Amino acid sequence: VLLAVVDPGVGGPRAAVVLEAGGRWYVGPDNGLFELVARRAGQARCWEIVERPPGMSASFHGRDLFAPAAGRLARGEMPGGFTRPCSLGRRPDWPDDLAQIVYIDHYGNAMTGLRASVLPIGARLSAADRVVSRARTFSDVPEGDAFWYENSNGLAEIAVNFGRADHALGIGLGTEVTILA
Amino acid sequence: VLLAVVDPGVGGPRAAVVLEAGGRWYVGPDNGLFELVARRAGQARCWEIVERPPGMSASFHGRDLFAPAAGRLARGEMPGGFTRPCSLGRRPDWPDDLAQIVYIDHYGNAMTGLRASVLPIGARLSAADRVVSRARTFSDVPEGDAFWYENSNGLAEIAVNFGRADHALGIGLGTEVTILA
Amino acid sequence: VLLAVVDPGVGGPRAAVVLEAGGRWYVGPDNGLFELVARRAGQARCWEIVERPPGMSASFHGRDLFAPAAGRLARGEMPGGFTRPCSLGRRPDWPDDLAQIVYIDHYGNAMTGLRASVLPIGARLSAADRVVSRARTFSDVPEGDAFWYENSNGLAEIAVNFGRADHALGIGLGTEVTILA
Repeated sequence: VLLAVVDPGVGGPRAAVVLEAGGRWYVGPDNGLFELVARRAGQARCWEIVERPPGMSASFHGRDLFAPAAGRLARGEMPGGFTRPCSLGRRPDWPDDLAQIVYIDHYGNAMTGLRASVLPIGARLSAADRVVSRARTFSDVPEGDAFWYENSNGLAEIAVNFGRADHALGIGLGTEVTILA
Repeated sequence: VLLAVVDPGVGGPRAAVVLEAGGRWYVGPDNGLFELVARRAGQARCWEIVERPPGMSASFHGRDLFAPAAGRLARGEMPGGFTRPCSLGRRPDWPDDLAQIVYIDHYGNAMTGLRASVLPIGARLSAADRVVSRARTFSDVPEGDAFWYENSNGLAEIAVNFGRADHALGIGLGTEVTILA
Repeated sequence: VLLAVVDPGVGGPRAAVVLEAGGRWYVGPDNGLFELVARRAGQARCWEIVERPPGMSASFHGRDLFAPAAGRLARGEMPGGFTRPCSLGRRPDWPDDLAQIVYIDHYGNAMTGLRASVLPIGARLSAADRVVSRARTFSDVPEGDAFWYENSNGLAEIAVNFGRADHALGIGLGTEVTILA
């Protein structure tokens, strides 16, 4: 059971949903957050959470609405008891991968939204006019060298061995990334 | 059982206490930290922790003194075995609410020390020469607009939909807030 | 069972080890991380983790390699089943204590790599041309005064009562510390 909340429209009209996809339960807002879950699972079932707990806040549905639903699923209840079937709002125009820097971690490593598995063998990545080649892991390149590698999430990540990729390459959140085959 | 530590006087003369208030146990320093707990509970009983564990550090009573006491309470021991009755140091001059920004969260939302429940219906808040009206939640105002709302703790919080209230309004920790009825 | 990972050489030739020292199990990379554990325990036994889980990533051995081994130890398995005896790589030239600022905490307290127990009674510490004397705890000095004390880890730490030692003294990570007896 996964409870997921990225929900700037909390308290607004977006539905609160339970999704069953790939053998897992997902609970959260129907605002696109589960688009790629549903897309990659191929088959997904969706229910709308219709019960409203007494005293529910307008701004904190993770605690007040989603967590109780996730708790009921976690202890084995089926969603039928507190939901009604619905259709998940789909976003067919959203890309499968995002050729941008989507996250800079504490060490300055720059995660892209590109799955390493979809990149050509030998692909290089270009960002902010710098080009980096693929390495298996940090210690495969000299100290101070930049490279990209498949990170622990399966995404292409730009890094510098014993350094910060963000500072060294001048890249940040939202920097566009180009794939050079 | 709640163990609470904000304790700049650790190792000094302030007592270490157990409080029973509102059906809960509180363990921590007798430095005012539990003033509002005792005040709002109406009735509270207090004990001083008198035993000192061997090897107790001078600067880390959360680990060395309070946690063992909280552990004994959590497993059902009554405080009589390791404490003596005392009177909690009270702060009758402290206000019930604090008309200031008391916390800026990761997203730039500015929490005040004012309970939303004590504010007049339709109250506006003024901070740094800006005035904001109440909204139920973020998505009730246009993107970029500032407002205040009752947050998940029941406090009035100043926010900007899809923005940072701290930057947009020029407010920070300690900024005074005025209630405009 | 302690799983410890500071591992810039992940995916490189350093071994993955299980250490038994001082009645505890340690799991992590053989890159010096356990040098002081082994040195202070006096006696330590070491095994190399030789099994490789299917699908192990090149860059995240904490999750893929060390955690499963720690889990097996935690449930009572002996390392013999999934390791082979080895010799921990030792670093006899590494010092027992480090006369530097090794960590600045959230409040600006500056931790040294010096154990308080090895410092002479009455020792003063000098850093960035400032000299501080020992105090038992924060509240033993006037507000705004700098001092050093034995912190909760047993290390000498430079602090300012109700202030930030890093800003007040102009010290930071790596600042050299001199012991004045």
